[in-house]
Formats: sequence, structure tokens, C-alpha cells
Amino acid sequence: MSDGEQTTIGLGEFQKLIERLYYEKDNARGIAGTYMWFQEEVGELTRAIRRKHDRENLEEEFADVLAWLVSLASLHGIDIEQAALRKYNVPNPP
Amino acid sequence: MSDGEQTTIGLGEFQKLIERLYYEKDNARGIAGTYMWFQEEVGELTRAIRRKHDRENLEEEFADVLAWLVSLASLHGIDIEQAALRKYNVPNPP
Repeated sequence: MSDGEQTTIGLGEFQKLIERLYYEKDNARGIAGTYMWFQEEVGELTRAIRRKHDRENLEEEFADVLAWLVSLASLHGIDIEQAALRKYNVPNPP
Repeated sequence: MSDGEQTTIGLGEFQKLIERLYYEKDNARGIAGTYMWFQEEVGELTRAIRRKHDRENLEEEFADVLAWLVSLASLHGIDIEQAALRKYNVPNPP
């Protein structure tokens, strides 16, 4: 997948990447268990935001919460790109 | 922004869309206040996951958590697309 050159990624493309990496394992664990992993990552992001000084860690935690959110969406059969477009890429967003 | 036709969106493009819509307001509110909004949306997503039956609402809550996560990243000057690529689009992802 990686050629070390990719500098952009579509939201749907990212969801597919995460599915290739983790769907099987996350699906076997199930929604409730995967939700707990997601929340663990939200907790780690919270700590990184509070601590402020470790920028690399902060970046990583944002990426992790995103990945677990996307994986949770996959477990529900939800295309997060379409969900995002439907809600926010509209004439009068919330 | 919307022409009613867009079916894909880059992760960075989505972050810029959310910035155009909400950065000014979120930045004025600050990180701690925006974090609380993010968590409120995580709560709404949690409820939607638990309730199961309202698929449209579930999709919307995934979109909302994504939007608030991305906005929080913007408040930290973090490019979530680059963070995601650096962590997951690599030869040996976690």
C-alpha cells in the first residue's frame, strides 16, 4: 500500500486502508469491544491534549482516534465519507 | 463548496471544509470548550450505537464525531491527513 510518497488520502480510501488492516480482527471482537478500544484511544488523546508538550504523540493520538472511529463505522457498514459529505458538504451545514 | 455532486473527499480537504465552517467559532471558544463539544458528540454516537435502529442518526453521529475530532486537530495546528498517513500508511502499521 505505501510507497512512501503518498501525501493525500481520501476519507473513503482511509476507511478502506483501516479495513484492510483491522476489519477482520475488529469484527471478530465485535462492536462493544471495539467501542472500548475506541474509548481507550479517546482517553489517550485527552491526556495528550492536556499534556500539550509532546507534539508527535498528540499527532499520533489524533490519528488513532480517527482510525478507531472509522473502524467502528465499518463494523456498522457505514461509509464515513458519504456520511461526512451528506452532513457537511451541503449548502447549509449545521 | 457543494455542487451536490461530490462523492469523494480527501481527509485534508474535509479538514479544510470544517475549518471554513467552524474554525473561527471553535478557536474563539478554545481547546477545552471545543473538547467538551467533541465529547458531547462522542456521547451522542454512543447512544446511537446502543440504540441501533436509527441508521440515519447513526451515520450523522459518525460524521459529527469526525467533524469535531478534525476541528480539535485544527485548533492544535495538526494536519490530520498527514498524521493519519504517517501512522497508518506505512510498511508496518501498528
